Amino acid sequence: PKPSYLQHVVLPAKLMSLECICLQSRSSRCVFEPVRVARHQPGEHDVTIDVKFCGVCHSDVHVAKNDFLETKFPVVPGHEIAGVVAAVGARVTKFRVGDHVGVGFFVDSCLECAPCKRGDEHFCSATFTPTFNGKPAHGRAGAGVTKGGYSTAMVVDERFAIALPKALPLERAGPLLCAGVTMYAPLVKWRVGPGSRVGINGLGGLGTIGVKLAKALGAHVTVITRSARKERQARAAGADAIVLSSDAASIKAAARSLDLVVDTVSVRHDLKVSALAPGGLIDLLAVDGVWCYCGLILDMLDVQPVRLLQHQLSLTATQIGGIALTQRCVDFCAKHAILPEVEVVEATPAQLSAVYEKLDGGNDAGVRYVLDIGNTLNASVFEQPRARAPKLVSGWRVGAQIALILNRAALARIEEFVLEHTAAIAGGVGAALFAAVAAFVIPPLASRIRG
Amino acid sequence: PKPSYLQHVVLPAKLMSLECICLQSRSSRCVFEPVRVARHQPGEHDVTIDVKFCGVCHSDVHVAKNDFLETKFPVVPGHEIAGVVAAVGARVTKFRVGDHVGVGFFVDSCLECAPCKRGDEHFCSATFTPTFNGKPAHGRAGAGVTKGGYSTAMVVDERFAIALPKALPLERAGPLLCAGVTMYAPLVKWRVGPGSRVGINGLGGLGTIGVKLAKALGAHVTVITRSARKERQARAAGADAIVLSSDAASIKAAARSLDLVVDTVSVRHDLKVSALAPGGLIDLLAVDGVWCYCGLILDMLDVQPVRLLQHQLSLTATQIGGIALTQRCVDFCAKHAILPEVEVVEATPAQLSAVYEKLDGGNDAGVRYVLDIGNTLNASVFEQPRARAPKLVSGWRVGAQIALILNRAALARIEEFVLEHTAAIAGGVGAALFAAVAAFVIPPLASRIRG
Repeated sequence: PKPSYLQHVVLPAKLMSLECICLQSRSSRCVFEPVRVARHQPGEHDVTIDVKFCGVCHSDVHVAKNDFLETKFPVVPGHEIAGVVAAVGARVTKFRVGDHVGVGFFVDSCLECAPCKRGDEHFCSATFTPTFNGKPAHGRAGAGVTKGGYSTAMVVDERFAIALPKALPLERAGPLLCAGVTMYAPLVKWRVGPGSRVGINGLGGLGTIGVKLAKALGAHVTVITRSARKERQARAAGADAIVLSSDAASIKAAARSLDLVVDTVSVRHDLKVSALAPGGLIDLLAVDGVWCYCGLILDMLDVQPVRLLQHQLSLTATQIGGIALTQRCVDFCAKHAILPEVEVVEATPAQLSAVYEKLDGGNDAGVRYVLDIGNTLNASVFEQPRARAPKLVSGWRVGAQIALILNRAALARIEEFVLEHTAAIAGGVGAALFAAVAAFVIPPLASRIRG
Repeated sequence: PKPSYLQHVVLPAKLMSLECICLQSRSSRCVFEPVRVARHQPGEHDVTIDVKFCGVCHSDVHVAKNDFLETKFPVVPGHEIAGVVAAVGARVTKFRVGDHVGVGFFVDSCLECAPCKRGDEHFCSATFTPTFNGKPAHGRAGAGVTKGGYSTAMVVDERFAIALPKALPLERAGPLLCAGVTMYAPLVKWRVGPGSRVGINGLGGLGTIGVKLAKALGAHVTVITRSARKERQARAAGADAIVLSSDAASIKAAARSLDLVVDTVSVRHDLKVSALAPGGLIDLLAVDGVWCYCGLILDMLDVQPVRLLQHQLSLTATQIGGIALTQRCVDFCAKHAILPEVEVVEATPAQLSAVYEKLDGGNDAGVRYVLDIGNTLNASVFEQPRARAPKLVSGWRVGAQIALILNRAALARIEEFVLEHTAAIAGGVGAALFAAVAAFVIPPLASRIRG
């Protein structure tokens, strides 16, 4: 290590209250606009980051659309941030000016509870502070709602910053901090190594990097995809085998052949975890197999526990990873030259509209979109015309929620009735028939009436 | 070891074609009757067993009721068999005459595939042969449908027989071969040891032994039960804490406190694995917690994957264990003086009717019922009057199945519609309302009409 006077460039306080340019959206319509924002004053543990690139994650879209009904507008998304250290506080030890640095999903946690101490800051018993749309709680993330990486500068405590080896091209490093560790976490948790038979469901941004990571860990990798057109892309990423999820024969041929499936698909898809409905994707799992969701599936799934029992299967899910695991993931990727497929786009409102449309529709391209903040987010963006609103599928709006809750409540009620009152089973059958009428007749009718 | 001539008592071939008395049921009404049956000729690897006791397992009831629609009548259930070796074949090495011996869930498998070789005979790639209602396939289980332990004698290949240490009282050993290993398997699979926080849901026969095993492994054990009356029984088994599943406050107080829940409840119970319905049993799991079903739950459960993601939970299930694990379980129990709570009952048709009624209604007594074959199943049983049919809850009859399948199909269709056609969301809401009417109005009406 060099002497400390070389590590720290102490700027005057005025300069340290950084003004930067952000891209923000004021409503769930996801129309972005540039705005000038002051970052909080860097403290002695903080690194000030000159943001160069920021990946666009599907969860940016969820939050910007207010899918979880907890978005605080205006919102500045972005948590796949890669940049260069512009300044460091007096007590910073991990970084020096000029280092490559990344910021992932969160920027603060209590650092004192058991989960924080074992490196699971994202399960902090108090609360962790997401990189955007978060409420600071532990004094290391400024004041007010956090603003993410669609921004020219960040101020982050070094304990929540990731050292990026210079071997990683900066424009491809950001997605490792979210998409990368999201795939790395289940592979590590379920002890994937040589001999493991891993499936990756979905070949979008997450899936492609998942294939590369699983291969580097020594696994035999099967890509599960709806589309035969994906085969070349899957093979290019390193896949050993392909299963077409749209083809029952393809599933059958690969039945009981996988120990772990990492499922990156973030739209409704039924695995058919039911003895009543054989032939689903769940059949791909071997005895003791694990199906691990990594996408945000808001829809309900029917699970018949006896179907899990039959082959001792597990349904589970993991989300991102703590700082230590993220660092390990980045270092693993640097060592094995694993890089996400990215498409670098201008950090402009118009480009964001286009990217949001693509992600919202289900990212079929297998690439991660990365905003070129360093070269394109600057004063000129203020001169551009207002962006058009992206066309977004509204899968989880309040109306649909009410319908789904009502629907599930009705379903549960009918089932309880059928099971408890078999003496009056006719009533149950009647109710189910009635529900069938509701399901198969009313919606198409309503569609027709509305044209 | 003694010289081999002391180990083998070779009987003349005629004597070896054993006639024994079985209790069989001819239909799903579960009315048992005595019958004389010839066991198959013992081979050189076989042990002939003088059956002394046989536990009555809930899955006996399932099969006898034909809940899986695959029972071959007449059926002789029983797979918690404890007896004494009466004779051994010439090449038997594990047993000698007079040894205590047990037979569990299965009596044959191919012994050549990968699962068999790693000790998972119950996942044999060819097929394993259940101790009763099974079709022999590998030549070690006689011919015709296998007949279980409600029987005075058995002939079993020594590789599928369990050595019972004489420290284990015979009348309490049988349930270890099914209930015992059923509880031991998940505790071993999920690496329970000192520091583990284990929950046992349900304090019937399975649950009680589960508590004892988890305690002996060093875990902190919480019993989850519907009834406050169970507290004394739970403490007697060794429980450190109690959660009342019928009391939201009790669940809330223990939220996020368990690493593994072994769920022994074999009737419908909703854990509420849904972000839409907080406050369910699933909330007991800590981050990375595992909910493991061991009961045969035929009902459907609603699972919202995002709810698993929130705390990285796993839903899983295990079933019994292979021969090696069963032997390990029995030896562990002998070493730690772990014995199931049993109630020994006469092996008569009348007693079986009573026991089947109790098990079918959900075994609240926390004991395993054990048939006293050695002392009570004999010629005198033929003199007894025909037993009355037990009153059984018909939870899974064909009518109910049709209603449930229709119901699920209808409501899944409504969900798809709501999610795909948000433009015509009114139709979805209408359909859901219609279904709600079906659910909340028709069944009570039908009940009332039927009185």
